[in-house]
Amino acid sequence: MPFVYHRTVRFADTDAAGVVFFPNYLAICHEAYEESLAAGGIELQSFFREHDVVVPVAKCQAEYVRPLRCGDKISVSLTSAPLGADGYAINYDVHRLGRPAKLAARLRTEHVCLSAASRHRRALPSPLAAWLRRHSA
Amino acid sequence: MPFVYHRTVRFADTDAAGVVFFPNYLAICHEAYEESLAAGGIELQSFFREHDVVVPVAKCQAEYVRPLRCGDKISVSLTSAPLGADGYAINYDVHRLGRPAKLAARLRTEHVCLSAASRHRRALPSPLAAWLRRHSA
Amino acid sequence: MPFVYHRTVRFADTDAAGVVFFPNYLAICHEAYEESLAAGGIELQSFFREHDVVVPVAKCQAEYVRPLRCGDKISVSLTSAPLGADGYAINYDVHRLGRPAKLAARLRTEHVCLSAASRHRRALPSPLAAWLRRHSA
Amino acid sequence: MPFVYHRTVRFADTDAAGVVFFPNYLAICHEAYEESLAAGGIELQSFFREHDVVVPVAKCQAEYVRPLRCGDKISVSLTSAPLGADGYAINYDVHRLGRPAKLAARLRTEHVCLSAASRHRRALPSPLAAWLRRHSA
Repeated sequence: MPFVYHRTVRFADTDAAGVVFFPNYLAICHEAYEESLAAGGIELQSFFREHDVVVPVAKCQAEYVRPLRCGDKISVSLTSAPLGADGYAINYDVHRLGRPAKLAARLRTEHVCLSAASRHRRALPSPLAAWLRRHSA
Repeated sequence: MPFVYHRTVRFADTDAAGVVFFPNYLAICHEAYEESLAAGGIELQSFFREHDVVVPVAKCQAEYVRPLRCGDKISVSLTSAPLGADGYAINYDVHRLGRPAKLAARLRTEHVCLSAASRHRRALPSPLAAWLRRHSA
Repeated sequence: MPFVYHRTVRFADTDAAGVVFFPNYLAICHEAYEESLAAGGIELQSFFREHDVVVPVAKCQAEYVRPLRCGDKISVSLTSAPLGADGYAINYDVHRLGRPAKLAARLRTEHVCLSAASRHRRALPSPLAAWLRRHSA
Repeated sequence: MPFVYHRTVRFADTDAAGVVFFPNYLAICHEAYEESLAAGGIELQSFFREHDVVVPVAKCQAEYVRPLRCGDKISVSLTSAPLGADGYAINYDVHRLGRPAKLAARLRTEHVCLSAASRHRRALPSPLAAWLRRHSA
């Protein structure tokens, strides 16, 4: 089941071309990811520390379809997929809301689950595995 | 009447000290300003262009009281005040929500109203003057 | 011939994990791109306006190999490649300097050349075509 | 003796008004501060940890005189001043280079020196006190 995050484009997101600066789409999608974790009971300040786990982004990609401007209302629809036993991918569809809504960008991040202490790969803690199942496409 | 904006602190707001990077408080307060304008019917993409007006920040200041961390729920309470005939100040109180809410920072921006074409000072267009009165302390 | 850009990692680049926030690598690589254009006599403020051209990023991708921390000295090595008659790709290798230098990330952006006025695809203006040839792998 | 830092304005610094977004001046000045510390032998990754010290920004202010655009060459001239026994202020003059150079902004940050462990105020470690003397106005 996708997780859907709503957001307004802010002045801080834009650049001198008058549209959202392309790296900022990744930051916006990361907000959707953070919000989906919080909705799954995973509190960012404590969870990763308490479970000795970090899940850094190993790869990302983005495809830009339509520019976004300050004040635009957007939705980010997030779905997840396992990547082996100790990682996952997240796909994000960014739409500019309106009648009709229009696809603005498609992004993807790939994450690996590591022990914070040893930096070795480790299995997902169970709340994170539950989050992954909930939003699997 | 203050305008109150709610926001969650995001990973993108933070720095390697683990807390919100101090310039980012200004960007967060500017979001509150944008949202208050939109709530007053002032659409950012068209209003300034159609009224030949820009209202740049001439000065700003901030006082940091408590650090903010990723995942913190915050409120920004915005009040405005006229500065002469062709400018205004905005004061922002940022609180970290909780029981009780605690003051995290106090900020202020000062704006001057200019003709976009001539760059000379000009009076506020009436929707902006109405916004200013609505949120005056 | 690659264009090489040197940079120090700044506090503003980092996040609460203590390392460079993953979208910021794209902004850093875009700096290298801007610097390579300037080195090729393409002045950002005037060139695109005077030539009725914009070259937005249509796609990007990144692969993160090693984290970067505040104060790290890095190099970004940029090479370009044509993409059809009216576009180009840029590949960026980011190294953390030291003895030996170590690969930190590999990134790629893909650009399409459009008329600013019509938004239709158009051929590269000749200074941009010369820049492209100069840095082709 | 002022510390002078040179910088080119980047696309990432700008917003949809076509100029540097006002909070970003603070981030640019912080770069100058980081560079001045590094020039004084204070390595950001290790110094603060090894000396059990943090020096957060307690207050800041900015006055914007002239807009800056992508590609502009700027200098940041930094001078410091003690604030009591356990703090300091930094004043930054930002100039847009050219013939003649023109003042673009004046900024100020105020810092308090704390023990990282106890969060109590403490005296400056001697390398930081030396840095402060070196750049005092």
